[in-house]
Order: sequence, then C-alpha cells, then structure tokens
Amino acid sequence: MCEYAPTARTRIYRGAAKACYDQRTIHAILDDIPECTIAICDPKTGLPRQMVTTHWRVDDAIYIHGGIGSAFYKALASGAPVAVSVAATDGLVLARSAFDTSINYRSVTIYGVFEPVEEVAAQLALLEAFYEQLLPGRWQEIRQPSAKEMAATYVLRLPLVEAVAKISAGEPDDQEEAPQVWGGVRARVQGWGEVSADTSSRDMPLPPSIVRLGAK
Amino acid sequence: MCEYAPTARTRIYRGAAKACYDQRTIHAILDDIPECTIAICDPKTGLPRQMVTTHWRVDDAIYIHGGIGSAFYKALASGAPVAVSVAATDGLVLARSAFDTSINYRSVTIYGVFEPVEEVAAQLALLEAFYEQLLPGRWQEIRQPSAKEMAATYVLRLPLVEAVAKISAGEPDDQEEAPQVWGGVRARVQGWGEVSADTSSRDMPLPPSIVRLGAK
Repeated sequence: MCEYAPTARTRIYRGAAKACYDQRTIHAILDDIPECTIAICDPKTGLPRQMVTTHWRVDDAIYIHGGIGSAFYKALASGAPVAVSVAATDGLVLARSAFDTSINYRSVTIYGVFEPVEEVAAQLALLEAFYEQLLPGRWQEIRQPSAKEMAATYVLRLPLVEAVAKISAGEPDDQEEAPQVWGGVRARVQGWGEVSADTSSRDMPLPPSIVRLGAK
Repeated sequence: MCEYAPTARTRIYRGAAKACYDQRTIHAILDDIPECTIAICDPKTGLPRQMVTTHWRVDDAIYIHGGIGSAFYKALASGAPVAVSVAATDGLVLARSAFDTSINYRSVTIYGVFEPVEEVAAQLALLEAFYEQLLPGRWQEIRQPSAKEMAATYVLRLPLVEAVAKISAGEPDDQEEAPQVWGGVRARVQGWGEVSADTSSRDMPLPPSIVRLGAK
C-alpha cells in the first residue's frame, strides 16, 4: 500500500491541495515530530478531553506507553475512539497582503482505536525500538525494565488506517499584489540539540551512544 | 488573578507536581508555541475530531482565525465545546534505567467554548496584534484586509478559564540506580530561523521589519 484511503473524517475539502494520504510522507512526519496530542470524547459528558504524549512508529502503526494508573491511558486501553495529531510549524510566509500571509506547516491526524500490546516480550521489543530511534545504543547501556516495571506500564498500538497529512510549504502565493512589496519566508526550525551531563556524571567519560552523536 | 482554578478536567492526579495553574506560566507557553491542536466531539457520531491551527494570545484569551467555509471553524463558531492543547518537547532525559528515562516538555490544555468576535474593528485590531507578535512592523508594510476578506474570515476567542500547564524539566531523577552509568539530558530546541526572499523579491531592499530582525 502507498496511500491511505480518504474517509468522511480525513477528506479535506477546503485547501484540498494541502491534503496528502501518501504513506511514506505520513510516516516521515510521524517520525520527525516526537509529541502527539490525543483526543477522546468523555462517554459520560460527551465533552472532549486531550492529553499530550510522546509517540513512536514501527511499521504501519504508532505506539505510546504510560502508567497503568493513568485514567486517560485506561480509557485508551479500553477502546475509546481517538483523534491523534502531530504538527510542526515550519515557517511564516510573508505575503504582500495580510490576507495571503500564512504558515508553512506539516501535520498528521489519525483516527482509530488504540489496542493494548499484551505480551511482555512484544512490549519490550517495542520499547527497545523506541529507544533505538531516540538514541541508538542507549538501551544497552542502561538498566532495562524489570517485570514489575513492565506490569505497571501500558504499551498501546494505533494502526494507521484512517490518516491524513496536511502540508503547506513554499513561497507566498500572491502574484496579484503590488510587486514593489517585499515577500519571503521566515523559517521555523526544531530539532535535537546539545547533550549535557547531569550533576553526578560531570566527571565521567561519555558513553558510546553519546560519543556517536557528537561524531555525526 | 494569578492562578486558574483546577476543575474535574484540569486537576492532575498522576504526576501532580508537573501540573501548573499559574497564569503567567500558562501565558508564556501559549506565546512561545505557535500551533495548537483543537478537539471537538462530533454531535452526530460522538467521535472526536481534531484540527491544528496557529493561535495567538491577547490578555487572558487565545484567538484563532480561519475561513468561513471551513466546517470545523463553523462548528467552533457555533459553540462546540473544545479541548485545545499546545505542546513542545524540550529534551530527552537520559536516566540510568529505561523506566526512569523521560521527556522534558511544556504543554497547556484549555477547555471551553470559542466565541466569534463579531465587530470588524475588533477583528482587525486582533489580527494586527497577531501580526505584531509574529513580526513587529510587518502589518504596516503590507496591504491590510479588505471588507470582503474580513467578511470571509472568522476570528474566534477562547477565554482562559479552565486551563492547566504540565511541565517537566531538569535532570534524571534516578538516584537509586547504578551510579557508574552516565546520565544527562539531550536538549530539543525550536524557534524562528533565517529569512529568505521569494523569487520576485531577490533584488529588492529588505523592509524595515526584516532589517530589525537581523539587527537583533
């Protein structure tokens, strides 16, 4: 498969040219942005609730993990229908009119239901994959989860079935406006930055996972 | 006022030390992160829907704007109850165990109902405030909105009444773990970057709003 099928919820009518159902594009956005916002509807009140958490992707699903004591995670594990969004602002598009001024961005919204990963070996493999994505090699350098810690942790999977990206990129599109006015783009950037040792590691040699980062 | 009152939805039980109801702190997070994720519950299906957009804050409310043809904006303008979140990942906290590894972040979640700003003069003043925050002076350099453009635009206000921030910052908190393992934090950063002229502005002098940016 290379495209998710649009549905009533993921079909975009206004600004349809910004919509994208391409699997590779959606995977890349999910991989680039660490945090997602998850919405559910409270079955008692019918009102929306939101939580922000860190996700990761393996194959054609995203995963989250959290403590079994969390009411929100409990609702997700029980099958509450969700909307999940990730988004990044990539630039301020400085057009020649206020009306055409806009934002360059990438976002993905996914609809579906999380399913708990029950088997501990599968949970561990998924958590290791998460660590390998965040900082390759780190998982092997630290104490791995105990059975008690795993028993206190949800690992939840959301298969990517109903998903859409919205992408806006490029220059101002305002060629009807006064050509003597300057136009352009102010970039917005995000990414991983410097590594700093904590108080008790100040005089220690850096572990291989961190050394490799610096060598890049 | 200096603190929002916790409610059933904004009171945080797990990790309560990360919760913050301080008005100034919440304002600062809303001002620093340009994009927000808005959730509503579809009244027909009871299922959550989400949209990402750019917000701005004036006094004790956030504002969004969008085209009157958008079904999502129409639902918001009609009084659909919302959850709105903004979030940034600030670092990867490299603890000595997988279980204590965590993310430094800032997030705000707001619950409430958007209300349309009806008067055109008020809409224009709010849009000008938005531009002044994004790029001081730009509003005066470009063509301002026509009556027709304003008639096609929603400006919606969400008063900050039910709001909570969650903040995680600092070093690993895992002092029970093996002290010979290195620990620290890998920062994640975001912000505005370079300005580039579009194709038709390459040979033009920079306008004062851009020159001032460079002078900073």
